[in-house]
Amino acid sequence: MRVLGVDPGTLRMGLGVLEVRGSSYTLVTCETVKVSKNLSIPERLKELYRALQEFIERYQPTVLALENVFFGKDVRALVKIGEARACAMLAAAEKGVPVVEYPPARIKEAVSGNGRASKIQIQQMIRHLLRLKEAPPHDAADALAVAICHLQSQHVLRVRESANVRLPRG
Amino acid sequence: MRVLGVDPGTLRMGLGVLEVRGSSYTLVTCETVKVSKNLSIPERLKELYRALQEFIERYQPTVLALENVFFGKDVRALVKIGEARACAMLAAAEKGVPVVEYPPARIKEAVSGNGRASKIQIQQMIRHLLRLKEAPPHDAADALAVAICHLQSQHVLRVRESANVRLPRG
Repeated sequence: MRVLGVDPGTLRMGLGVLEVRGSSYTLVTCETVKVSKNLSIPERLKELYRALQEFIERYQPTVLALENVFFGKDVRALVKIGEARACAMLAAAEKGVPVVEYPPARIKEAVSGNGRASKIQIQQMIRHLLRLKEAPPHDAADALAVAICHLQSQHVLRVRESANVRLPRG
Repeated sequence: MRVLGVDPGTLRMGLGVLEVRGSSYTLVTCETVKVSKNLSIPERLKELYRALQEFIERYQPTVLALENVFFGKDVRALVKIGEARACAMLAAAEKGVPVVEYPPARIKEAVSGNGRASKIQIQQMIRHLLRLKEAPPHDAADALAVAICHLQSQHVLRVRESANVRLPRG
């Protein structure tokens, strides 16, 4: 199974792919797609959408995990987040890849044990969890954090299901 | 020239096309694209994006005029507006159609002379301006209002430019 994590933004979009085997996972790739401020917004979205399409085509993820940010920003920033999210969701829907979403606090909690961890703490935890020599740039680290959050949720679900089976009935 | 006006929403998207000849304009078509609440958000966006693509393909607009809503909504609604806007902007960018944006108050002012006009007032003004027997549904009326706002802005621009030419120099 391959998980593509996405940290959505209209100028910088973090992408990270993890390969999962049993209960362990390894880094396949991560990068930050950057688009120029000089482009019009429709042109920026087109570049992001195309980059996402190519990324999905190349790495063939089983699922796309997306951060859903719904707080603490001004109204224009929230609309822009929606625009960036749409590029990711559209690219996934076009390729038939299911999309799952997690709120920022849950992602931080999953990676660092602290729902209010800083960007630097997340970068360091990603470096540690994936045994990397250097921490990835923060957008890519955030994207990998979403992917790890999804894996942990799946893992918890499996443990719960297996626990349910073992529970004595009546 | 043909103007496609868009009133963006993730469950209902208003679309309206005006044909412009000299200083007059007529209705080509208007409709409301509706998507099912039962679909996942990525599937909804895909349907909206495809509908927009087909609409642009069929009616070949010169420009897409979009309402930019940045106020008075809760944060989730703002993100959803961004998602809907992205579908419209992406479809336009893919087809090489330029996008122009106008804030709601300016659109209402252009159509009714009142920046705080109600939805019903906008519907009635659209019926009157386009000499229709019945008022279009409110999403379609809002879309036509954006298109009319764009035409008025272009007209004002032309009058200003022509006035500048006629001004005595020195």
